[in-house]
Amino acid sequence: MNTIDKLAEQFSKLPGIGPRQAKRFVYFLLKKDDAFLKGLSENILKLKQDINTCESCYQFFQDKTKTSAKKCEICRDSTRDETVLMVVGKDADMENIEKNHIYNGKYFILGGYLPIMSNDASWVRSDKLFEIVKQRKDELKEVILALSLNPEGENTIYHVTRTLKPLTDKYPIKVSTLGKGLSTGTELEYSDDDTLKNALKNRS
Amino acid sequence: MNTIDKLAEQFSKLPGIGPRQAKRFVYFLLKKDDAFLKGLSENILKLKQDINTCESCYQFFQDKTKTSAKKCEICRDSTRDETVLMVVGKDADMENIEKNHIYNGKYFILGGYLPIMSNDASWVRSDKLFEIVKQRKDELKEVILALSLNPEGENTIYHVTRTLKPLTDKYPIKVSTLGKGLSTGTELEYSDDDTLKNALKNRS
Amino acid sequence: MNTIDKLAEQFSKLPGIGPRQAKRFVYFLLKKDDAFLKGLSENILKLKQDINTCESCYQFFQDKTKTSAKKCEICRDSTRDETVLMVVGKDADMENIEKNHIYNGKYFILGGYLPIMSNDASWVRSDKLFEIVKQRKDELKEVILALSLNPEGENTIYHVTRTLKPLTDKYPIKVSTLGKGLSTGTELEYSDDDTLKNALKNRS
Amino acid sequence: MNTIDKLAEQFSKLPGIGPRQAKRFVYFLLKKDDAFLKGLSENILKLKQDINTCESCYQFFQDKTKTSAKKCEICRDSTRDETVLMVVGKDADMENIEKNHIYNGKYFILGGYLPIMSNDASWVRSDKLFEIVKQRKDELKEVILALSLNPEGENTIYHVTRTLKPLTDKYPIKVSTLGKGLSTGTELEYSDDDTLKNALKNRS
Repeated sequence: MNTIDKLAEQFSKLPGIGPRQAKRFVYFLLKKDDAFLKGLSENILKLKQDINTCESCYQFFQDKTKTSAKKCEICRDSTRDETVLMVVGKDADMENIEKNHIYNGKYFILGGYLPIMSNDASWVRSDKLFEIVKQRKDELKEVILALSLNPEGENTIYHVTRTLKPLTDKYPIKVSTLGKGLSTGTELEYSDDDTLKNALKNRS
Repeated sequence: MNTIDKLAEQFSKLPGIGPRQAKRFVYFLLKKDDAFLKGLSENILKLKQDINTCESCYQFFQDKTKTSAKKCEICRDSTRDETVLMVVGKDADMENIEKNHIYNGKYFILGGYLPIMSNDASWVRSDKLFEIVKQRKDELKEVILALSLNPEGENTIYHVTRTLKPLTDKYPIKVSTLGKGLSTGTELEYSDDDTLKNALKNRS
Repeated sequence: MNTIDKLAEQFSKLPGIGPRQAKRFVYFLLKKDDAFLKGLSENILKLKQDINTCESCYQFFQDKTKTSAKKCEICRDSTRDETVLMVVGKDADMENIEKNHIYNGKYFILGGYLPIMSNDASWVRSDKLFEIVKQRKDELKEVILALSLNPEGENTIYHVTRTLKPLTDKYPIKVSTLGKGLSTGTELEYSDDDTLKNALKNRS
Repeated sequence: MNTIDKLAEQFSKLPGIGPRQAKRFVYFLLKKDDAFLKGLSENILKLKQDINTCESCYQFFQDKTKTSAKKCEICRDSTRDETVLMVVGKDADMENIEKNHIYNGKYFILGGYLPIMSNDASWVRSDKLFEIVKQRKDELKEVILALSLNPEGENTIYHVTRTLKPLTDKYPIKVSTLGKGLSTGTELEYSDDDTLKNALKNRS
């Protein structure tokens, strides 16, 4: 197999990329200047060296302070609200929240959702979340489970709530979930029953 | 113009139907038996005779009691909750709510939404709504504005709230709107800022 | 069942129309003036009375000469090229060809295509086509089978060619099919093998 | 800017990839093992070293014979039909033709199409095509312009035909274009006028 085909095969592993588009990536690169290919190649190679996982929130971050920081910028920010912790599924969720400047607490990245037919939570960091909440039991008043509204999200909420129960039973820490109802563009005529139930229940 | 073209022109006025599909309807009818065409023709002709508009909620209904009923079945149902009134844009919205058995009060069909660049509310029945609320001021505790979450819906909420103000200022009648937040399938990563703000604000 | 639901049920039989859009048609009609409903109803009722099937080409047409014409305008047009006959599946195909003024002969509407798993040609007028070709055997030089390029079209071409064989063997009448190759917008990179084979074979 | 953002920015240059999907690629790579990243990085780096451009047809190829081959496998294949040359826009077109085993001559990759509002053919290798045709004037009988059927393709055909005119006027070399007509799945009812004209003109 020649390099075009080998590289196309690797590109086809990228999320959402099939063999045709992977090939198109390779032909595109063949027309780019050497500097671009060198830069792309280098960044891929040093990606995992440059990027750490924060020991508090498990977000991916790059240590710019050069002091071998083990915590990301948000977790080191003492001006953040210590009374609340927002749990999300992945970095992209946290970035979307941060982008909108609507929350001033800290985060915890679960790393994934729990599939509905499974109790295998091995790649969901609920144990580490337990540790973080335990560490912060004196300041924390609320843990917000900010998960997507779908079966895996609901299953994960159930699992995480249960995992935290020993702490939330013992200490005055509330576990909350995001409000449900109409989202932008929702039309009454086409809404499913859960959306209508929630919208009606949560009216104000 | 022959009858094929005349009928196609009429069909092309139906919502979402262009000239091609309108023609296809005509060719379809040309292959149906006479009984079908007769039945279709009759139902169209007697549609507005058979169907009344309820004088209370303005829903379209068919008087099956043969007593020249001026009110629809829901409005005549004394077992319904009289303390709450749900205002919707059109019959299809009300049907979707009814289908889900999540509300036991009565309705009011506004007839449409108020376009955002307009104060022309001539085809939105806010005056008649005022009358109905005034009539029911003794039992009514809440008027729920169950409108779609889009600019026209928001504009209509503003307009209707303002129209009802003389009554809601004077009497203990609350005007509420449907809860906002995550709807079925909403993913955190892709949510727009309004949805995130609402979901966070309305958490529990 | 009330008239709204009865009419929606009838509308849902129209090609491409589901229960939701059918309901939307009814609510649309409820807001139209009586004149529109009356006109629509009448045209549906008299559709099959006004529209005849041409005894030569089986096209739907309306007799405007009021002489109980049995032939449509095209079939009565003596200026048309009598040496060629174009066979199509349905009226809409013929209309698309006529619209483009690229053909000056007469037509024959088969009424449908022959499904591939079936030899049931009962609703495909191949027998009547045989009669027409036989009638015109002295002037006709070519019968063009202008059918869509899909399995049913190919199956119908095979069936019709076989049906006409007794005549085309005996008389100098050629049976031709439309040219195949690249159609508007076809991209070489994505073309399927049949298109490529045909395009290459039919190059000039 | 950290490495995640730098790499996402580079990925967003890939055809069809926006900032969101580019970010998703990076997060995907952060979860892959080091071996995968190393392999991907290496193949990108050595892509242009491993891949040559054939001096005859300008296809991208990898020299497996280790003899610093300047011609690709197809151009070195003496069993190929020397009397015909197929001109295509890019490698992907040639691969699609080869995949179908319908052509046994050699190729020439133009490198692109000529935009319609431009006479800037600087990146279309028409001059080099002229040289190749001139070199092969003794064996060549036909040059097939196998270009996509769209305005840029048609413009390129015009330009290339004009470029080759000095040779095709002097020598018995025919310039042909792919056959046009119905392509797979084309329905008569919806065909545009060019497709119908071509299909009718090229019937057989």
